[in-house]
Amino acid sequence: MAEHTVTVENTLQTLLNEKKYTTIRDILVTMNPADIAAVFSGVETEKLPLLFRLLPKELAAESFVEMESDEQEALIRGISDSELRQVMDELYVDDAVDIVEEMPANVVQRILAQSNPEMRKEINEILQYPENSAGSVMTTEYVKLTPKMTVGDAILRIRRTGVDKETIYTCYVLENRLLVGTVSVKSLLLAQNDLQAVETVMDTNLITVTTHTDQEEVARTMSKYNLLAIPVVDGDNRMVGIVTFDDAMDVIEEETTEDMEIMAGMTPSDKTYLRSSPLELFRHRIPWLSLLLISATFTGLILTNFEDKLSRMVCLTAFIPMLMDTGGNSGSQSSVTVIRALSLGELEFSDLGRVIWKEVRTAILCGLALAALCFAKIMVVDYLMLRTEDVTVTVALVVSLTMAVTVLCAKIVGCTLPMLAKKVGFDPAVMASPFITTIVDALSLLVYFGFATAMLEQLRTAL
Amino acid sequence: MAEHTVTVENTLQTLLNEKKYTTIRDILVTMNPADIAAVFSGVETEKLPLLFRLLPKELAAESFVEMESDEQEALIRGISDSELRQVMDELYVDDAVDIVEEMPANVVQRILAQSNPEMRKEINEILQYPENSAGSVMTTEYVKLTPKMTVGDAILRIRRTGVDKETIYTCYVLENRLLVGTVSVKSLLLAQNDLQAVETVMDTNLITVTTHTDQEEVARTMSKYNLLAIPVVDGDNRMVGIVTFDDAMDVIEEETTEDMEIMAGMTPSDKTYLRSSPLELFRHRIPWLSLLLISATFTGLILTNFEDKLSRMVCLTAFIPMLMDTGGNSGSQSSVTVIRALSLGELEFSDLGRVIWKEVRTAILCGLALAALCFAKIMVVDYLMLRTEDVTVTVALVVSLTMAVTVLCAKIVGCTLPMLAKKVGFDPAVMASPFITTIVDALSLLVYFGFATAMLEQLRTAL
Repeated sequence: MAEHTVTVENTLQTLLNEKKYTTIRDILVTMNPADIAAVFSGVETEKLPLLFRLLPKELAAESFVEMESDEQEALIRGISDSELRQVMDELYVDDAVDIVEEMPANVVQRILAQSNPEMRKEINEILQYPENSAGSVMTTEYVKLTPKMTVGDAILRIRRTGVDKETIYTCYVLENRLLVGTVSVKSLLLAQNDLQAVETVMDTNLITVTTHTDQEEVARTMSKYNLLAIPVVDGDNRMVGIVTFDDAMDVIEEETTEDMEIMAGMTPSDKTYLRSSPLELFRHRIPWLSLLLISATFTGLILTNFEDKLSRMVCLTAFIPMLMDTGGNSGSQSSVTVIRALSLGELEFSDLGRVIWKEVRTAILCGLALAALCFAKIMVVDYLMLRTEDVTVTVALVVSLTMAVTVLCAKIVGCTLPMLAKKVGFDPAVMASPFITTIVDALSLLVYFGFATAMLEQLRTAL
Repeated sequence: MAEHTVTVENTLQTLLNEKKYTTIRDILVTMNPADIAAVFSGVETEKLPLLFRLLPKELAAESFVEMESDEQEALIRGISDSELRQVMDELYVDDAVDIVEEMPANVVQRILAQSNPEMRKEINEILQYPENSAGSVMTTEYVKLTPKMTVGDAILRIRRTGVDKETIYTCYVLENRLLVGTVSVKSLLLAQNDLQAVETVMDTNLITVTTHTDQEEVARTMSKYNLLAIPVVDGDNRMVGIVTFDDAMDVIEEETTEDMEIMAGMTPSDKTYLRSSPLELFRHRIPWLSLLLISATFTGLILTNFEDKLSRMVCLTAFIPMLMDTGGNSGSQSSVTVIRALSLGELEFSDLGRVIWKEVRTAILCGLALAALCFAKIMVVDYLMLRTEDVTVTVALVVSLTMAVTVLCAKIVGCTLPMLAKKVGFDPAVMASPFITTIVDALSLLVYFGFATAMLEQLRTAL
């Protein structure tokens, strides 16, 4: 797929240099909006309006929607008011809103000036909903039917008004602006009798979201119930719009990327990786790195505190990275599992007890296995093979015991923190690897030196 | 939403104990399949067949599809052959295949015995495609039209045959089993004239996948082009089925969960968290933990090697966790960003040079900022406030310099390994946090002791 696009891109560039516009047009009309947008992103911005004018009206608008916002802006600045008006006439309201949200104020003014009054009103209404809410991603263009209408009339209405609707496949049956049922075009077409009322074939088992529902919950609900579109209602239960499946898929993709970024200790970004400058990447990455660096002060303090013991028994130092890393990895496993389950809606805060109990049992299994492995490794590699100074069976026991306890602590911390974060209204994704690692590092060192002091002192006294 | 389900669950449980079956039926028919399945999962398995028989045929089949596989199995074992036949008659082929794939052999035989011959043949065909391929998730029930058919006839055909099709909204125009175009019900309904041929309204700009395309690529393609359904063709370009948007959404969800699990050092699991036993969680978590524990041997060896220096200057030890953690965090940021971009198809292997160059510049910015922060922290906290023994300006310089170099190495390793993994056919997600951390740990220690030896020795000679 991608290689195909690259070739077309080169061909178009050559044709553009040779000014063979008719040929370019013939090629572009065979392409899909997403691919046209990809090709456009490789062209110098001054030539964009020229290429854009080659496209038929509808394809032009559809390709415009698929373009990146900086190219959209360049294009809007390069085309005339009447051309902009034509584009706006072809756009669905939700796409128009997406574009408006990314543009600087003067471009927004031009866009609104070239939109028809109804579109302008709807754009302004949608813009008032909070970011990432159902209201902000919905469209107001859906098919409205009434309960008493016949199936035949409903089909006629769809045929007459459907062209401007984002979807015709689910139609909404309203009574005094309240949603009373939904009916699919499939049920209408497959109805036995065209004269029966819409209310006899509609589905009254309604799944709705409100204008303020978080977009991620909207998308998960649609995925759970396999919905093509979901109705959005206001505080008084009046229907105000719909969110369609294509937007839900985009939302899921965005939210997943955001979760992964946060889980890796970055502040989320709207831009794709290749479009982000090093300075932008730096700004998204440095806050957590700095914070975590400062938190490592505690780990340093613990080590400084035990400096005496370390200088008397330097071999203890060699096992610190292994203990800290294994602790960190164990904790991350639990936290990532819980964060994902929370985001898929599989877990609630009320499950905390069950989760901890499950993790404790898992941690005991993992802890024992890792302690055994660790003991075997130290005895074989450090004691028998390398004959490292100071490494004794007691040292191997101290390290293995620390391993088991650290894994247990790490898994409890790892599963608990994301659930607590969710409870107090933070994003659970923050409680992933980097954060858990920092806490587990300190815990593992305290456990380590605790055991080391107790066991080694005892041994010395015994001798 | 979830709390609503819980209440209904309790009500139903009470009604079930009181044997009020008519009331239960009245409640269940108002519910959606996904919610019915959720309620069923809280009921003892012996009572499942009883509850299931209360549902009308179609709702029963739809709820069956939404149930977890162990409950499906219990239910199949609890119902009669003729009841099973009724369920199979209502299922779409792709859902039937999903169920068959999870069942033990004797249950599969019963399912196939109770399916009609056509269904049996189609199930067997789909079962032959490799796991996670387009062929394995497609359905064979779609609307077929011919190019010369009139729009009116096409609508009639949909009305006659649509009830058994998974979607009627996109219809496929075939000529000698080859796909020549797609036409939406919207275009058919909105066509000016019922007598015009289907070929005049069909879209010939085809986006297809083959039976062996990976399901994740299928889902991404559908999301990219906003498709409700995508046609699947065989090696000879003959159409064999379609994948619908609801399956695509499920695939994206599954693949994302899998990516996150792998990125946190776990082998992926099909079961949800709450349904996994501690033993199962242990089995998915222990392989990577063991492997990473063993790899930490190298870090231990490096530390053992420098034991002499450490015993002469124990304060160096206190900074090891900070250096290792910051290195690990820096590397994870780069690897997770690149892994996500690869999985979204934003990056190809050919971008490797650009990626490294971008990461190097970002790493220089991050490295300098962190080195400065680290220097300031050591001077203020360790030197001025705590007056830690041995900590001098030179030590602060060694640590800060190591910090800058470690961040640079970490970011280069972090962005390169996932791309190399993809190139040689591994899952890039493996190259995330735990793996990168282990490599960066060793690197940071080597750099640290290198600088420490050079600078501190030099200082000693100078004095």
